[in-house]
Order: sequence, then C-alpha cells, then structure tokens
Amino acid sequence: MGDIVDEESKSLPSKENFSEWYNEVLMTAQVMDVRYPVKGLYVWYPFGFSIRKKVYNLLRSLMDVDHQECYFPMLIPKTELLKESEHIKGFEDEVYWVTHGGLTPLEIPLALRPTSETAIYPMYKLWIRSHADLPLKLYQIVNTFRYETKQTRPLIRLREITSFKEAHTAHATWEDAERQVQEAIGIYSDFFTKLAIPFIICKRPDWDKFPGADYTMAFDTLMPNGRTLQIGTVHHLGTRFARTFEIMYEDAKGERQYVNQTCYGISERCIAAVIGIHGDNKGLVLPPNASPTQVVIIPIVFKSGGAEILDACKKVRAILNEAGIATVLDDSSERPGAKYYKWEMKGVPFRIEIGPRDLKSNSVMLVRRDGVKESLPMDGLPSAISGRLMDFQAELLKRASESMWSRIKDCSTLDEARSQIESGVARLAWCGEKACGLEMENATGGKLLGEPQGMTGGGACPVCGKPAGRVVLVARSY
Amino acid sequence: MGDIVDEESKSLPSKENFSEWYNEVLMTAQVMDVRYPVKGLYVWYPFGFSIRKKVYNLLRSLMDVDHQECYFPMLIPKTELLKESEHIKGFEDEVYWVTHGGLTPLEIPLALRPTSETAIYPMYKLWIRSHADLPLKLYQIVNTFRYETKQTRPLIRLREITSFKEAHTAHATWEDAERQVQEAIGIYSDFFTKLAIPFIICKRPDWDKFPGADYTMAFDTLMPNGRTLQIGTVHHLGTRFARTFEIMYEDAKGERQYVNQTCYGISERCIAAVIGIHGDNKGLVLPPNASPTQVVIIPIVFKSGGAEILDACKKVRAILNEAGIATVLDDSSERPGAKYYKWEMKGVPFRIEIGPRDLKSNSVMLVRRDGVKESLPMDGLPSAISGRLMDFQAELLKRASESMWSRIKDCSTLDEARSQIESGVARLAWCGEKACGLEMENATGGKLLGEPQGMTGGGACPVCGKPAGRVVLVARSY
Repeated sequence: MGDIVDEESKSLPSKENFSEWYNEVLMTAQVMDVRYPVKGLYVWYPFGFSIRKKVYNLLRSLMDVDHQECYFPMLIPKTELLKESEHIKGFEDEVYWVTHGGLTPLEIPLALRPTSETAIYPMYKLWIRSHADLPLKLYQIVNTFRYETKQTRPLIRLREITSFKEAHTAHATWEDAERQVQEAIGIYSDFFTKLAIPFIICKRPDWDKFPGADYTMAFDTLMPNGRTLQIGTVHHLGTRFARTFEIMYEDAKGERQYVNQTCYGISERCIAAVIGIHGDNKGLVLPPNASPTQVVIIPIVFKSGGAEILDACKKVRAILNEAGIATVLDDSSERPGAKYYKWEMKGVPFRIEIGPRDLKSNSVMLVRRDGVKESLPMDGLPSAISGRLMDFQAELLKRASESMWSRIKDCSTLDEARSQIESGVARLAWCGEKACGLEMENATGGKLLGEPQGMTGGGACPVCGKPAGRVVLVARSY
Repeated sequence: MGDIVDEESKSLPSKENFSEWYNEVLMTAQVMDVRYPVKGLYVWYPFGFSIRKKVYNLLRSLMDVDHQECYFPMLIPKTELLKESEHIKGFEDEVYWVTHGGLTPLEIPLALRPTSETAIYPMYKLWIRSHADLPLKLYQIVNTFRYETKQTRPLIRLREITSFKEAHTAHATWEDAERQVQEAIGIYSDFFTKLAIPFIICKRPDWDKFPGADYTMAFDTLMPNGRTLQIGTVHHLGTRFARTFEIMYEDAKGERQYVNQTCYGISERCIAAVIGIHGDNKGLVLPPNASPTQVVIIPIVFKSGGAEILDACKKVRAILNEAGIATVLDDSSERPGAKYYKWEMKGVPFRIEIGPRDLKSNSVMLVRRDGVKESLPMDGLPSAISGRLMDFQAELLKRASESMWSRIKDCSTLDEARSQIESGVARLAWCGEKACGLEMENATGGKLLGEPQGMTGGGACPVCGKPAGRVVLVARSY
C-alpha cells in the first residue's frame, strides 16, 4: 500500500524556520496528522507508525537483556494516586480525571496515568517478599496522559503520550539502586547513539527533580533552533515510595527492610529528536537504525528494456533483503523524479538507481540521502551497502555531535549566557546555592539543566562571585 | 530473570470446576494478577505478557500482508462520539467519561474509546479524496474501555481491554466491502487455526449486530464449561458511518460517492480461549505457535558428570535455537521435579531431559506437555523436534475441534435445546422471524448466536411450527 493521500509535490519551509519546518515535515512526510479534533492529540500515520515500531523495537531489544516487559492498568484510583504527597504535588494540575461510567458517577474517581508509580507499586508490595526476589526490573510501553496547558507540539508536548517506555526497578540497598541508575544511563546512551542523537547527561537541580525522587539524571539533546529537548530521565527513588506503599523484603538475616527503587523513562520525543536533528529541506533524514526502509530501488526505465531492468531490480532487492538490509522496490508508474521526491521526504538513507547503462556495466548507482553518489559493482553489493550504511549512520552522529558541541559555550557572566542561549547552551561556574541557580534562570531567561556528567570547571559563580566548585548548563528548553 | 514470586508448589483446582480453575491458573502460572485495586482491571505479569507478545506478533504478521498499522488517540470528544446515533445507543451506558483536567472542568467531556470508529472516521474524511485512495485498510492494537456492570473476568470481561486489535477499511462499493468481510473472515480463521482454537462463524441476528452495522459476522468458540465465547467479529458498515462523517470519494466519472466500510476486531479473549480450551490440571498447555518458549531443556545431574551434561544441554539449546525453535535451558539449582512442575504450569509444549544415560546413548528424552515420552537421537534433532512440534500443534487443534463439535447438537424442541445448552450448543431450525428467535432465547435461557456459516438444515421452526429455511445456534455465552 502506498501513501494515504497522494498530494501534489509540496516544498517544505526552509529548516532555518525550524518550528514551521517541523510541523510541516511531520504532515508532508506522513509521520503525524495534527488535524485530530482535540488539542494536543495527534494521529500516527502508518508511515510514522512504522518508524515508531522500528525505534521501539530497538529500545525493546536493549531493555530485554535484563528487564521483563509487562502491563499495568491505565486507570489509577484517586486513593492510590494521592498516597505519595510529594509525587502528587508534581502532577495534580495535569491529571485527567474519569468521573463517570456511563451516566453513573464513580465512587472513586480514576486518573489517567500520568506515569505509573502509583499503579505499579501496590503490586510490588504483593510481589516482593524476600531478598531472593530482588532485583526486580520491569518495564512497559504505554500511553500516558497530561492535561497540558502550555502550547502542545506533536511528539514533543502531548496530552496523550502514546509511547512512554517506563522502567521500574527494586533493589536491596541504596547503592544497588545507584548502580541501576548507572546501568540505565548506559542503556539509554547506547539507544540514543544508535539513533545518532548526541546528548548531554545532567544531574537536575534539586528543585527540578522528579516528584518523589532522591535525585534525577536527565538526557538532553539540542535542537536546531537552539532549544534543548529532554529525551530521557533516570530517577533514584530511594525508599520514599517503598515507605508509602510498604514495599518490604526480608533480608538474609530475616529482618524486614524497605526496598530501594529507581525508575526511568523515554517517550516519543526520541523520534522528535531524530526528525529535528537530522532532517533537511527535502524532508526526513533517517539514520539506518531508525528507518523502516534502508534502501529503495528505483528502476530507470526508458522506452525499451524495461523488463530486463525490472528483473535486475528484483534480483537486487532479493539479495539485499536476504542480507538483512530492509529494501523496497518502487516499481509504481510514477516518474523517477516524483519517486526521488517521495523517498527523500520519507528520509530513506539510500536510493539505488538501475538503468540501461548500469545494467550494461553490471553495476548500480547508489545515491545517499545527503546526495553523495557512487557507482557500485553488482558483485559484492550486500557487503558494500552494509558497510556504507554503517558509515552513513556514523557520519550522521558525527555531524550532529559536532553541531551540538559547537553550540555549548563557556560563559563567565550572566550577560554572556543570556546571549549564548539564543542559539545554544551556556556553561557557567556555580557555587551550588539554589538562590544563585534561580538567579541564573531569571537573568538569562533560560533553565538550569543541572550539572553535566563528566565536565568540571573552575572560576567564580557569576551571581555571588564565590569560588565555584562545579559547572552548570543553562539553556532555553522545550 | 525468573518468576516474580517463587511460590510453594500449589496444586490447581480440577478443571472440571472450570471457573475456579481458570482464575487460579491465571494467577499460579503468572499470566494475570487479579489483585489490582480496581474491579475489572488486571495486571499482565511478565510471563503473561510474553504470551501476549507472541500471539499478537502472529496476528500482526497476518494483518501486515495487506493492512497498515497506525495509531489514533484514546480520547474521543463527546461531540464526535454522539454523532452516530445508532452507534452511541450501543455504548452510552458503558462509556467512561473524562470530565476534568487537573481541577478544571473540560469544556467538552472526553470519552475513553470503547472502540475507535468515531476517532478514526473524522480522519478518513480528510484522507480519502478519490477512488485511487481506495481501498484503505488500517488497523491498530490499543487499549479500549468499557464500564462493565456485569461480573468481570480476566481476559474475558474487562474494564480495560488492553489488547484490542481493530481494523477499519474503506471501499468504493458495498460489494467491495463485502469481499473485505470475507477476507477478514479468512485472516481470522487462519489466526485461530494457528492458535489451535476451533470456531464457529455465525451471522448474528439483526437485533444483536454491532451498533451502526449493516450486518455482523462473529467467531465463537466453546469453552469447557459449555459456554460460548465470542472471540472475533467482522462488521459490514455499509455507508452509515460514511454518511455521518461525510467520508466521500470522487469516482472515475468525477462523481462524489460515499465510501462503504468494514471494521473487525479481536481482543485478548483469544488468549482466554487458548488457556481455557487447552489447559489441564497441571496448568497451561500452549500450542507451539502461542508459546514464548517451545522447548525447555532440563539437565538431569547426579553427583558426578554434571559439567559434561550441562555442556550437552547448551549444545542442544544452541542447535535448536539456531533452527528457529524457541528453546531455554533451566540450569537453576532447583530439583528436576520442581522444574517439571514449573514449566508444565507455564504450558511449554516440550521438555527435553538430558541425563547420564542419554549422554551415553547420544540421545535425549523428549516429554510432550501431554505426557507422551520418546527417546530421540541427537543426530537430526532439530528437524525431529520441528516435526513433532507441528504434530503436537495439529493434535491440540484436532482434540479441541472434536470436543467442540461433539457438543453442538441438533435439537428439534425448545425443551431439548434448554437441556442441551447446559453443556454445549443447540442447533435449531428457524423460520427467520425475530419473535420466534426471541422466544428461543426466552424458553432456553440461552442466546441466539445466529445463523452458522456453511450449515443448512430443514424441519420446522420449533416455536411457530412453520417450515424453516434456516438453522440457528443457541447457547449460553460469556
């Protein structure tokens, strides 16, 4: 099946106008339809859904190494949701409430899960008995809901997050949970690298951590318009939820202890990042790992010799698919130019053209999504293509990383920082005081992303002038 | 990772007490946990979820041949849901309503989708323009909601149906849509056959069709307690929804026409059927196509020679997995007996035992889930196991089919029918009049499943005595 609507070729707004470009490319490439009649709710087109499937299967394969997938109910009784006071404070303004079943008012209103701690932990209380049950590492991929009052954006700020991967783990000790935080950071780093998305990892400031957590580590990437996008978070929950939900285990000495917990999540923002970072004025540019189709073959057929060329195309399709390269043949009746336009819009990494001349020389013309062309001999084609897909993937990551890191700059004054965050991220020395952190936000109009992992610095806090033991990143964020 | 809770070996209630057995086996085999604090909402344990994944991947592979997967929002504005008057009449008592976002009352209440016609068809109006856009065949696998007031049961009668596969198609003509109904029936027949679930296909009586449909075809199977379970439905929607939602296309002559539509659905009841029909007093019995694990290898280790046996087990695991047979090795420290108990409970089709004697004779001991034992030579093991898995799959279907068909009986009076439906299905002649159909239901306490496909019969209608052109099935249904 082809596209739902065969639109006339449309050109996109320049990517320099990022917001416009982003909204337009989602529609034109048929990723999301924004015309659903409720604000903040969007429709996954089949093509967009096929990207989602590819990306989430990748995520699943990384999680399944030592987590198990499961499913908890979407509706959470008010009585459970309100149990953890810090937690509910963080969500009370944005929870959707179900109050009626048919015409009957419900005795206890039900919340649409904004996140699932309060759905899952009453069960953990039942499931965890002894130290032999630990660690417990489960995850689910589900729809969650937020009554967003800010401006909504497809894949980025949604009222129905359709693809929330949330993991919830329980451990014997605080240190075990801390090790799990590091393991989760490792998995997420691997995942984003496979999507060719560069990232910075920050410890969020205390006033911006997950409601109920001991601390929060967050992954941010930098979008072309200079805004950072939070694409993943990992929380150390300590024993706070365990105390609220009475999740205890018997240790080796027979004593009852509270478990220590972590949770960590990724949403469809990972797809927003892929689209926003790699796309260009012709449409999407998908890294091979995120593209449902890696190679499209287009026959270049003139008046005669069509059958022979089509046979060659089919043969190439077969050998590439057999080698594990997701390959389609576009033998529709459209002109080659229209096909180029369409597959470029969909971001397919490689196009192979086969025409009479290629047939004669027993070769094919390879055109990368970035326009680089090369003639490749038919012999040994699968390994040549595989290698080049890996190169292309690596190049996309390299290009994106360079672009991101070139836009993160040391600033020594608040004025410098204010100007820097127009287009990127400012790095500032910080004394560690909350008052100074909040003043940085006030004075720059940005947000404190927190202390970046693996970066150190010196100098004086630009607010109070005291010697600063640490650095923080400040940016405009989505 | 192992089980969440290592319970002491428990024995199940006899399957003769089907309801008790069913509830108990879901918990003990860790398919669903029924202790979630809201009636009608259940938790998929990791093991249960792995069955779901296997079964729905099978369903996806059948659908993907000529449908595309997509995703539409879960929340439907009241204004859209109420547009189709017949449709809403069928659902108004069981729709959950979201009335508040945070503390703010919503301007337009939002329904949790009970099914997605009214979420999808406003988009079809935008997507369909010309006959070239037809047929359009999409599906999604989503959670849907019903405020059930009847007794709820895991996988069977739920307030959150977690796994509703719903397909929605649009066609140029009524006849095209009718052909699609037949195609859907073909896909579903294939699916249930692959799950070793026997079924009857009936045209539901007019008063029991899907709200808004021209007619409804339904798949029913027969559970061990004599109740039928509806496991799939296929609806011809004609142009009713197209007229309500203004879904039109331009035909080849340039004239605007309403599309003709179908929709069809399958829920996690398919898994209830697998469990209910095949299980036994030792637990689940999963057909190989529905089992996440097809073979479990258990080393029979005595005081010495353990390493050698374990090596042989690993080798067998490797060659079976390589041959595409999902195989695990249970090398935990439990006694073999405890392992047998556990894997039988989980319904794994085949167990392979390897002990010193097997090693010596270069063979393995194969034990089918139904107890049949056989020694197999190590040479050619993958093909021997593959073949036997297929045989086992076929035997389960044959046994279940025989059991079902032996419990469907011709009855010529209402008294006979009333007694027959204590344990199965009654087949009656029917004149076709609604009054007579309703009287059959009244007099027997059963439900008219409708006219079965491919069955004809004669005789007189047992209510009015007129010559009957057709037969109907009557049963107690879930």
